This record gives sequence, C-alpha cells and structure tokens, in this order.
Amino acid sequence: MISFLNDYNEVSHPKILDELQKYQNEKFEGYSKDELVQEAISNIKDNLQNHDVEIHFLHGGTIANVIGLMMTMQRHESVISVDTGHIVNTENASIEAIGHQIVLVKEKNGKMTVEEIEKALNSHSYEYNSKPKVVYISNATELGTVYKRDELKKLYEYCKSRNLYLFMDGARIANAIMSKHSDLEFSDLPKYLDVFTIGGTKNGFMFGEAVVFVNEELKNIYARMVIKQRGALLAKGFLYGIQFKTMFENGLFFKIAKNAVDMAQKLVYVFEKYNISTVYNTEANLVFVELDNQIHDKLSEKFMYQYDAIDENKGLCRFVTTWNTNESEIVELDRVLEKIIY
Amino acid sequence: MISFLNDYNEVSHPKILDELQKYQNEKFEGYSKDELVQEAISNIKDNLQNHDVEIHFLHGGTIANVIGLMMTMQRHESVISVDTGHIVNTENASIEAIGHQIVLVKEKNGKMTVEEIEKALNSHSYEYNSKPKVVYISNATELGTVYKRDELKKLYEYCKSRNLYLFMDGARIANAIMSKHSDLEFSDLPKYLDVFTIGGTKNGFMFGEAVVFVNEELKNIYARMVIKQRGALLAKGFLYGIQFKTMFENGLFFKIAKNAVDMAQKLVYVFEKYNISTVYNTEANLVFVELDNQIHDKLSEKFMYQYDAIDENKGLCRFVTTWNTNESEIVELDRVLEKIIY
Amino acid sequence: MISFLNDYNEVSHPKILDELQKYQNEKFEGYSKDELVQEAISNIKDNLQNHDVEIHFLHGGTIANVIGLMMTMQRHESVISVDTGHIVNTENASIEAIGHQIVLVKEKNGKMTVEEIEKALNSHSYEYNSKPKVVYISNATELGTVYKRDELKKLYEYCKSRNLYLFMDGARIANAIMSKHSDLEFSDLPKYLDVFTIGGTKNGFMFGEAVVFVNEELKNIYARMVIKQRGALLAKGFLYGIQFKTMFENGLFFKIAKNAVDMAQKLVYVFEKYNISTVYNTEANLVFVELDNQIHDKLSEKFMYQYDAIDENKGLCRFVTTWNTNESEIVELDRVLEKIIY
Amino acid sequence: MISFLNDYNEVSHPKILDELQKYQNEKFEGYSKDELVQEAISNIKDNLQNHDVEIHFLHGGTIANVIGLMMTMQRHESVISVDTGHIVNTENASIEAIGHQIVLVKEKNGKMTVEEIEKALNSHSYEYNSKPKVVYISNATELGTVYKRDELKKLYEYCKSRNLYLFMDGARIANAIMSKHSDLEFSDLPKYLDVFTIGGTKNGFMFGEAVVFVNEELKNIYARMVIKQRGALLAKGFLYGIQFKTMFENGLFFKIAKNAVDMAQKLVYVFEKYNISTVYNTEANLVFVELDNQIHDKLSEKFMYQYDAIDENKGLCRFVTTWNTNESEIVELDRVLEKIIY
Repeated sequence: MISFLNDYNEVSHPKILDELQKYQNEKFEGYSKDELVQEAISNIKDNLQNHDVEIHFLHGGTIANVIGLMMTMQRHESVISVDTGHIVNTENASIEAIGHQIVLVKEKNGKMTVEEIEKALNSHSYEYNSKPKVVYISNATELGTVYKRDELKKLYEYCKSRNLYLFMDGARIANAIMSKHSDLEFSDLPKYLDVFTIGGTKNGFMFGEAVVFVNEELKNIYARMVIKQRGALLAKGFLYGIQFKTMFENGLFFKIAKNAVDMAQKLVYVFEKYNISTVYNTEANLVFVELDNQIHDKLSEKFMYQYDAIDENKGLCRFVTTWNTNESEIVELDRVLEKIIY
Repeated sequence: MISFLNDYNEVSHPKILDELQKYQNEKFEGYSKDELVQEAISNIKDNLQNHDVEIHFLHGGTIANVIGLMMTMQRHESVISVDTGHIVNTENASIEAIGHQIVLVKEKNGKMTVEEIEKALNSHSYEYNSKPKVVYISNATELGTVYKRDELKKLYEYCKSRNLYLFMDGARIANAIMSKHSDLEFSDLPKYLDVFTIGGTKNGFMFGEAVVFVNEELKNIYARMVIKQRGALLAKGFLYGIQFKTMFENGLFFKIAKNAVDMAQKLVYVFEKYNISTVYNTEANLVFVELDNQIHDKLSEKFMYQYDAIDENKGLCRFVTTWNTNESEIVELDRVLEKIIY
Repeated sequence: MISFLNDYNEVSHPKILDELQKYQNEKFEGYSKDELVQEAISNIKDNLQNHDVEIHFLHGGTIANVIGLMMTMQRHESVISVDTGHIVNTENASIEAIGHQIVLVKEKNGKMTVEEIEKALNSHSYEYNSKPKVVYISNATELGTVYKRDELKKLYEYCKSRNLYLFMDGARIANAIMSKHSDLEFSDLPKYLDVFTIGGTKNGFMFGEAVVFVNEELKNIYARMVIKQRGALLAKGFLYGIQFKTMFENGLFFKIAKNAVDMAQKLVYVFEKYNISTVYNTEANLVFVELDNQIHDKLSEKFMYQYDAIDENKGLCRFVTTWNTNESEIVELDRVLEKIIY
Repeated sequence: MISFLNDYNEVSHPKILDELQKYQNEKFEGYSKDELVQEAISNIKDNLQNHDVEIHFLHGGTIANVIGLMMTMQRHESVISVDTGHIVNTENASIEAIGHQIVLVKEKNGKMTVEEIEKALNSHSYEYNSKPKVVYISNATELGTVYKRDELKKLYEYCKSRNLYLFMDGARIANAIMSKHSDLEFSDLPKYLDVFTIGGTKNGFMFGEAVVFVNEELKNIYARMVIKQRGALLAKGFLYGIQFKTMFENGLFFKIAKNAVDMAQKLVYVFEKYNISTVYNTEANLVFVELDNQIHDKLSEKFMYQYDAIDENKGLCRFVTTWNTNESEIVELDRVLEKIIY
C-alpha cells in the first residue's frame, strides 16, 4: 500500500533522529529553559528576519491554536473564521471549551476576505453580540490553497484599521511558503500577522509547533503560564530545541517542504491526464479530486487516501503529499490509474 | 557538573531511540489508531494483570492529571488533595482552570489518610459547598514517600463507602512500585484505584504518560473527545506506542526504576555518614536533606540539585536519582562531601 | 410617546405588586426553600398537568437558557440551534462561555426542522467534531412565529430517535400558547420536550423564569448546585414564589398574554390597511414591517419601536405588543399612519 | 416564632414597595439604560463622595463577587482569601467555576492581614504556582467583625506596593459602616479599595447589589459584557434604579442598618447577662454564641437561628439582627432565656 493519507504518518525526518542520538548522553534543564531551545528560537528568528518576536513551542496544532488565540481574547471576545477553518469543526470545539465563540463567515477558495470580516463586524456590532477581536486564517488552508503576499497584507491592514488581531494557523506553513502559487516569504509573516504558528508535525518533526507572538500587546505577558496551566509545557522541552534547531539552522524545513508541494503538482498532472480535474486549486500539498466509486474501489486497493462520499456514485478524495513522498509513488499511481481507466 | 536536579533531563533511555530508528521507514495511522499503540496497551494490561481497563496516552503529567480528573467530576464537584499535592501548587491551577475546586487537607508524610478525607467531607456537607467526588493521591508522593498496599486498600475502601473515586497520580509510579518500603505491586493498581496515571517522562521516556480508567462508570464514555478538545491528542500517537511497548513488553520500565530507588538509598547512606539526616523518609527516588549554606555553597560547585532557602543559614535540598544515575556519581558526592566537611 | 419597544419595560402587572404588599410582614426561609415557592411550583405543575417535572426559578432568560442547557451537555457535547436563535447572537456568547459549541443550522420561519437537525448530525459525525446532544428551539421564535403541536411532536420524536434532548426557550411561551396560529397547549410541553423554560419577565412579572426538567435523566441531579455556582440562586426566592403563584393559580398568566397576541393581530390589520405588509408571519406578539425612512421618521416622533436599517432608504421595524398594550394605542397608530401616508 | 435566622427573609423595607407602586404606570428602557438607574448611580456616588467610579447593579452577592473578581484577573491569576471567606466555601466554588484558584490564608478575627498576604505571595512566587493578583476581604466579615479605617488603609497600601488589587465583598457593608467598632466611613471605600460591592439584599432591598470599580485599570472595559454573558443583566434594570435610589437619596440605607447593629449589641448584653459570652467580637449584625443543647432545645422552640453542632453537648449558634429587628424581640429572648436558665 502506498499512502497519501496524511502528512503525519511517519516517525520523523531521519536527520531528527540522528540529532536526538547525538544529544543522548547530555543533560538539559527542563521546561524549555535549556540552551538548545534558545538556539532553536534564535534560528527561527534568523529565518523570520525578526528578533523581536516571542516564541513558544508546543506539541500539536490544536493546542498551538488554543494557546495562540487565548492570548488574543478577553472573556467577552470572539474569533472570526471561515466555515472551513480547522478550529471550527476539526478540533472538538476546543475554542468554545476555553470560553470563546467562533463567528463564522464564508470561505472563498478556503480563504478569508476583507468583505467577510466586514460582514461579521457589522452583524456583531450590537451590545449583546460577542465582540470579534481576532481573525483566524490558515495558510496553507484546509482546502490546499495559499495566501499571496498582497492578500495577507490586505487582511492585515484591514485588521489594523478595525482594531483586530490577525492570527495564522501555520500547521502547513512550510508548504505555503514553498508553493509556486504564492510570493509570500517566511520573513513576511511577522510583517503581516499579530500571532502565528509554525507547524513541524506535518513537515518531518516527530512533534512540535511554534507559536510566534509579534504584536507588542501580546508579548511578555503570560503565555508561558497558560501553557503550563493547560498541561502543555513539555518537561523535556529540549526535544523541541533539538528538532527546531535541526530544521531551521540550515533551511532543511523549507527544502523538504518543497518536495511535498512539487509532488502534489505532479499528482495533479497525473489526474489531469485522465481527465480527473481537481476540486480546489492545488497550491500546497493537498490534492482534492472527485472519483467515481468504480475508480475509487480499485485505486484504494493499492493506495490510501481520505474518501468522503458525495453521493452513492462518487466521493471527494484527498491525496496528501509529504516531505517523504517519492516520485516513484506518483509514477505508480499513474500506472494503476491507467490500468483502471483504459 | 553532576546533576541530581530532576528525572527528566535527558533525551531518553537508549532503547527508546533504538526502537524509534527501527520504525523509521514505516507508516502508521495517526491519532493513536495504529497497531503499535494497541500492542503497547496490551503490554501494559498484561503487566496490570487486568485487560478490562481503558488506557489513553498523553504527553505529560499535568495533562494526564487534568484529563483523568475531568472524567471523574461533574460541574459542581471537587477533588480532595493533601496540601503538598502536585495539582495544588505546581501545575498553575490547571484543575481550577477547568472549573473545579481542590479541597485541601493536611498531608501525613506526604500521604492522604482516611481521617483527612472524612474531615473534608464533614466540612463540605453543606449545600453551598462544592461537593467532593474524587480523592487525589500521588505515588510516589511529592515528598518521596510511597503507599503500602494496605494504606491504598484502606483509602480505596473508604472511598467506595463514601461514593468517592480514588485517583492516583503515578508520575513516579515505577519508583513507587520498585521501592523496598512498599509491598504494593503494579497489578494492585487496578484493584484499589478508580483511575490512575503511569508516568513515563520521569522514567526514561522522551515523553508519555498513560491514563488508566478502571471504574466501569468512567470507561467508554468521552475521554478521547476531551483529550482532543484540550489539544492533547498527539498526531503521531504511534510515538507513544513505540515507547510504551519498549518499556512494558519486557519489564524494562521496572528494571530501570530499580536503579533510581537503589541509588537514592545509597545517597541516603552517604548523607548519614556525615550526620546529615533526611527530612522525609526516602522511599522512592527523592532525597531531601537540610544543608548549611557553607556546605551547599561548596557542594553546588560540582553538583546540581534543587535548593530552597529555609532561613539565611540553611536550605532544604532535593536530590533526585534516576534510571541513569551512576554509582560513580554517588561515590563522587561522598568524596566531595568528605572534603567539605572535614 | 407610545412604546412598542419591548415587553419588559414596566414594573409589573399590578396584581404582582399587590401580592408583594400582602406578604410584606411575613418572614420566609431563603433560597427558594419556603412554602410559597412550593405552592407556586405546584400551581405550575397543575397547569402542565404533570406533577413529575422538576422546576427551578431564575431571574432572567439568558441564565435560564444557560442553566437548562448546562444540564443537558457533557463537556464534549454541543447544541444545535437555528441561526436566528436567541442563544446564538443575543446573549453575549453565554453558551460558549460555559464551554459549549453551538452548531448553526438554517431557520425556516424562525423555526427548526427535522431536515436541518439531520444535516447538522451528518456534518458532525466525525470524531473530531463536537458531538451534538441537544436541540435548542424558541417558542414563540425570535421572528414572532410559533410551533404547532405537530411540528413540536415531530421534532421531539426525531430527537428521541437520535438520542438528542429537545430544549425549548419559552421566554415568550405564554404568547405562543395563546396564539391563534397554533393548537399547542401548555400541557403539551412536558409531552414533547426534555427541558423548557417558562418566561415571566416578558409577560408581566418583575422578573422570573422557570426551568422545567421533564426527562428523568435530567432530574434530581445537580441543577440547584450549578444555579448557586453560577451566582443565580436568589436569596429571596420567595419573590419568585409570590409572582409565579399569582400568575399561575388562576390562569392570569395566559389571560394577560392573550391581550398581547390580540393587539399584535390588530396592529397587523392597521399596517395592512396602508399596504405595509409584515415581513414574518405575526403569530405571537412581535410585528415586523419594512418602513420607508420617510414614514419611519415621522412615525418615530410619536412611537417607540426597534429600527434596523436595511439600506439608506428603509428599515426593518419591530413592534412588540404586551399584556398592557391598550387598544387605544393601536387606534392612535392608525390615526398617525393615516396622516403620514395620505 | 421569632426569627434571627438571616437578613434576607422578608420581602423588603416598606419604602421600596411604595416606590415600586409609584412607578407602576411608567415605561422604562430595559437593561439598566433608563434614567432611574442613572439617578441611583448618582445617589450612590454622592454618598461615596466620588463621581469617578463605575457602578453596575446585580441581583445577588455571589454573582457580584464573581463579576467583580472576574474583572481583576487574567487567566493565570488567582485571588487570596482568608479561609472563612464567603467565596471559599459558601458559593459552590463559583470562583473556580470561572477558572481561578483561591489561595487560602489564615483569618484573624475573620480578617485579612498584611502578614498573611505576604506569606501567600512567598509561597506562590514559583513559576508553576498560580499568580495571586487580587486580595478578597469581606466587610462586615463572615464572623461579624469589621475593618477599622487603618486596617483597610494598611491592606490597601500593601496591595499597591505588591501590585495587587484589593477587593471588598460588601454584602453587609451597611452594617460595617454603622458599626460602633469602626471609624470607617462610606466615603473611605473608594479611597482604599480597587473594587467593592454594596449589598442591598441583606439590608432591606428585595434584591440588588452594586459592584463599584474604582481602579482606572478596571473601568470602562468590559464589565457590562461579562455581566450579560453570565446571564446576569436583568431585563428590568430599572428595578435596581428604584431600589437604590430609594435607599441612597436620603440615607435610608444607613439609617436602617443602624437598627441592625444596635439590636445586635442589645442581644450581646442579653447573652452576657446569662454568662453566655460571644464567640467572636460582635461588631456588626451577627452574634455568635455557644449554647448547651439543653438551652438550645428550649430556646429553639420560640426562636429561629442557625445552629452547628460542636459536639454532642453543645452547638455554635448564629443570631442575625436586621433593619427590621424589633427591640421587643430582644426583650422576649431575654425573658425566655431567663425562664430556661433559672
């Protein structure tokens, strides 16, 4: 079986394990107070071309969103998200569980627009509405699309004009940055965002996400304390240090993400060859296609991917490519598809 | 520098990294739905001699306590703990953060007693008190003491008679089980507890704690959902599988803990040699001594350990031994102490 | 100025104040433990033709919804509501503030349908969605429509078939019951609902709502404790007793609501006379019309009502009639409208 | 039966009902936006000799504490209280229910001391402790004692020096102000407190507490929104307006409290006559005595008061006097006691 199921199905990039081995006989202070964490943070800041941000490491995407968003909202405030946002429907109501409403707006190619933020503000201007304070976006989005620099800049400037924070869920930010469909650079992030996360889990880490606070109002306050309070301060924080350092001191993070987006592109070509067109624009490492059940039934004998029934005849299928997807796997898919279809 | 600072200052037991390497080229389903997790759970159940319990894996001790205790309490209910309990004052009010009161009682050698539970129930029998529903204990305790089988049994039976759940924080359960001061066996845990945790982080894991639900009322309900909701469902759950399997399929978990408790005992002998007596009974892997600042100042040039000032002349010092403490480190401490004192 | 602004703008029905005077020299036990509360509960149960329900009194509609819904949901569960539901956007995210997600569906005449519940369940069947457990409806709805007996029965039966609770926000239940557009009777409520509220505030009380638990699973558990915990257990509970007794021992509650719905109907006739048609069906005591700004500007010199701009030329206007609306006020509106329009 | 049970067992002071009658035929804007509320606030500010404070009205003591304290704490912060504090054990863990820890210290005559605050800060200086941010006191205290001006001033100055807020639960503030045992004046409150409540329920109101924000950091932010979010914004806010105006425009609030404290004093004399000495200093309207069961059994045939068994022979009895306690009731107690004892 060849898997296009997800981007978190392997132990880690081999370099991570090699580095862990290297540090095996050393002792480190706990709770992210060690030097490796400091080095890793410094490496990330170098890549962001900004040494004023505040960075914390967490073990997964949901908790990174929870902690990042917690810091942006007072008790009566809410977060605006498109209806396909990861926090809306894929994280077991984790935002509501900490007491906040998500104000839903319509996605456009999986993305947020100024028009939709404005609508949300207008429909929440009454005293007894929750008060939107932060806008949540994902990049790459849940539909596999990415933000261009101008799109992000426009959102940010609008947010500033309306006294809103802009938050980016970067669970797949490496893919977004390496996408050929966007001119956005990693160092743009602190320019056009108040808070963002950098996802490691889906790009070769064993685990590890960074939450980056850019806005001065959100820095040096109490992030570390709510991290501990929510049970999310890892005792062996140096494991983050080792992983982030490995990935960020020499650009490995971006290099391996390039493979994921390149392979996604090749996958699109294969599907197009058989007149199977993609459902959303394939801009990062997610490829969505509609497959007839006849095709799916046979294809799924050799390949793993996510399938959601649309009706009794066909399904929406998601293929995920990763840092570790091999071109031969795409070639094999081509071969099998050919056999099925002709 | 030789460190007796804590038991979570190293990457992991070497066998863990070796196993991770072994699985590097495989793919696993995410979110603990893979086979390694099932195997690891089965291994733990074998060791518990009970295959009816429900087990979930988490990344750290605080979240393991939060999730375990969440499942025992309805909105109006509270948890009884001794005032030295880890949840009281070392986890940033994580229990209150999820909406529950901790009812404090006095510790006795760091332990809970039936008398104190009874007092708490009596002082909380009024309608406008919180309603105690669960009793929290740690084993080994925060003071390094351990529960004997009869002590645990007595607590459990009392809890049953008062319709309370008994919860054990087992962040250092391996040490408690290997302690020569207790006849408690690992397979006793599901006999005398409703919920408990098994701590890996402090016993050679990179990370990993298990929450074990024994009581039928707490099983097959919604633990997995609150784990996800609290951002604590690790994407690469198979990392737990690999670690727990490694530790539990051949008793490694207990074997390495034995070293920690043996070394603690040797440490006690060394201190006693210089008439430095321990503050609490050293029953697991924590050794508490009072050191004059003159001694501390010199000792801390070569050794790391926790120091809390008692007054301007002396401090309470905590030495922690681990699965990796080498006898030569104890010998060196002896040598240095001798030099300081004579 | 004549006010059609809302139904909570007067001290109370005069009979309430008279009764308060009568009890002025007596002493009552606090916290709803007095006999008047028991009598009032008994009166309500008589009217419901059901003496098995459990009833608690609260001071307002939002807290009644909060307490009622709290009892239906475990930590991971959510509530389904139409997007015009009062809990969605008019109660400052009070449901999210206690940790629960509201799953939004489309309203139909302000009402919930089986089809929409089904859609919500289908879109929330995945493990990482919140788990819908209760369906929230309002009767009368926020748009002034009401449920017929069959509509309620159908919702209830569907809920039972899907293991959902059905909750009714009865802030304007008296008006719904007295509506000529529904055959629903007060005694039907415990037949087709698991929990519901009975609103006093908008029908002549100074303050006071009842939360009625019908489903056995929700009775005799801990409602009173969460009421106290949320700061909602009124010290002088007997004030509820006096008010509910006054209203329910002789049908006054329904008699005065009849005036509200009758007056709303007369208001509709007046608007229709001038070819101003209502925006939603006027089935209870809320009349919605679109008014050109020219008309509104003049009308609002003499009458108070809620106005929301639709565009720069016209607005959506809400007129609320009450137990205390006098026919002469409708006549006066007719007279003024005539003068404006011709 | 003559009742000394509590100070919230009657409808209200007759003047309140008279005023309600007077306003019966008027209409007011809802949700405390009417003019009577503004007038009442102005009256209170006159009495406080401070027109810069921000005032909100609530229906009860627990919710007043919850809202007042909510505004002082960020997510990781906690409140210091003496162990007899009302929020600790008489409000169903309402503070924990909104996510905050109460740090307990020892009471001294029911009061907080600088020494105890300091101890709490010292024991909570570690990173993984909750961070104390506000000190909770009650005045009068739960034991019936009151703060002198200097005591309050000293607490306040210490709080300022340690960057803490000082919060006063004034459920019985009228009695505290009228106490002969304190020189504290009503206008001192905004001088030496950051937030405080003014209790109406226990001093002749039907219901009604004011939360007063003095500290600039706590004003004009979001109190009103969390009040609504917690279901505590009364629709008919003008009922607060009428009551507070009645009580504060002519000093009635203090005049009637004087009766309560005078009667308590007379009660003490009666007990002392029979060599029954009070357990705590009777400084406000609570009188605590130990009664032998023989006396209690007979006394309780004619008088109602709170009794808590100390052992099988005697109980701690609390007698509460109110604005409505009549001297003849004290005389009758004297008469009955004489009969019992001799």
